[in-house]
Amino acid sequence: MDLSRLSLNQITTERLTLPEAIAACRRHNIPHIGVWRHKLGECGLTTSASLMKDYGLSVSSLCRGGMFPASTQTGRRQRIDDNHTAIDQAAALGTDVLVLVCGPAPDRNLPAARAMVADGIAAIRDHARAAKVRLAIEPLHPMFAADRSVITTLAEANTLAERLDVAVIIDAYHVWWDPDLPAQIQRAGSRIAGFHVSDWLVPVPDILFGRGMMGDGVIALHEISRLIDKAGYKGPIEVEIFNRHLQAQDPDVLLPKLCERFRDQV
Amino acid sequence: MDLSRLSLNQITTERLTLPEAIAACRRHNIPHIGVWRHKLGECGLTTSASLMKDYGLSVSSLCRGGMFPASTQTGRRQRIDDNHTAIDQAAALGTDVLVLVCGPAPDRNLPAARAMVADGIAAIRDHARAAKVRLAIEPLHPMFAADRSVITTLAEANTLAERLDVAVIIDAYHVWWDPDLPAQIQRAGSRIAGFHVSDWLVPVPDILFGRGMMGDGVIALHEISRLIDKAGYKGPIEVEIFNRHLQAQDPDVLLPKLCERFRDQV
Repeated sequence: MDLSRLSLNQITTERLTLPEAIAACRRHNIPHIGVWRHKLGECGLTTSASLMKDYGLSVSSLCRGGMFPASTQTGRRQRIDDNHTAIDQAAALGTDVLVLVCGPAPDRNLPAARAMVADGIAAIRDHARAAKVRLAIEPLHPMFAADRSVITTLAEANTLAERLDVAVIIDAYHVWWDPDLPAQIQRAGSRIAGFHVSDWLVPVPDILFGRGMMGDGVIALHEISRLIDKAGYKGPIEVEIFNRHLQAQDPDVLLPKLCERFRDQV
Repeated sequence: MDLSRLSLNQITTERLTLPEAIAACRRHNIPHIGVWRHKLGECGLTTSASLMKDYGLSVSSLCRGGMFPASTQTGRRQRIDDNHTAIDQAAALGTDVLVLVCGPAPDRNLPAARAMVADGIAAIRDHARAAKVRLAIEPLHPMFAADRSVITTLAEANTLAERLDVAVIIDAYHVWWDPDLPAQIQRAGSRIAGFHVSDWLVPVPDILFGRGMMGDGVIALHEISRLIDKAGYKGPIEVEIFNRHLQAQDPDVLLPKLCERFRDQV
């Protein structure tokens, strides 16, 4: 894939502060960055935004809003408030995409939790529109259904996105296994607000932090990339690798390899 | 659930030999057992069959056939031969169900591997019919797509089972997250040849051996059990818990708890 579309998702270099990650992108000619909210505290929102502006770095997305289900009305209200904050942060950073990781069920009732997700997104839509931020539902791999997201397939994300008129994020790691993937990518079409890449290692070294560098695993990234291109998405592609070993590497060793793999494997 | 439907899947007490597992079932009034092929060598097929007959223990299924995809024609042929052996073993043990764990892709090509699965099942159907053994496709959780089964949803298993006129196994651990589950259980109907239970722990302690005792996790087992009953399945229900900690327990401590949880949680 052309390097002009490369975005470094911050989780890939989690040990760097936001200013350090921005400087690393600049050193390695990476034109976009995917920002995580827990990193914003490190140098403040205004400083972060100016730093990126100075460097001509674009923010492909802010990660993450969502986490809507909660067992009490007060709990759900707090999640909504937090999502409003996330929308404002996205706007201040100059990105038009807020990634929604929708959250797990507070009990064993998946249908009820899914309804809370729909209600939650509906409750923050107007605020997002006013701020010119697209809400983008990211379906997570079913192995995260119990602790991160009750939305686990692109089909379900599409249905919800169509109903609420919001967008979706397609992360290859979460959806590669799905026999319905080609049809659902086509269906997502102009609702695709982001594409994330990494690889599925065999065996998986760790449930959360066991993702691999593109090309080191079994995902047919070229094929997924082709389908997403065909569906019309031409924006930044985030490299989002949750991997403790890679996070521990010197970024000046990691990033040249990441650029090479992005060029050859995506 | 009524204990008359309880079957001990052998992996739950993996450290026991088959004769020891049979004796343990007898001590704890467990009327059915799910047998694994790698345990058959321990006392031979004929002895195993007689032991179970003597004790009046029924074999709910033999696990497992499948593993059809391979990178060469010779490799695929060997898998077919192995499945023929599995069918004969099932018949000799007096069970009419052979569980099919379909196998991973030998490369990054999932559609090709799925075609090999269909071809493989088609190639062993006649042998299975002659032996009066039902072939039952078990969709595995998508987190096993890379190393155990390219068939990951009940929808896909149903489509394949309808096309090839075979059966399906529904394991709650593999399918609990699926928003399409109620519709697909109904669709499976009389093709359901088995129901497996365990629980999904949070956090998952281990990808393969991290399943939990029923009631210790987040799966709505009562609800899945109700749907399967409504779909018409009234046969044995296997408790299949891949868990190193439980496998290490004294079976005379483990099995009473297992019976209690089966009665209360399934």
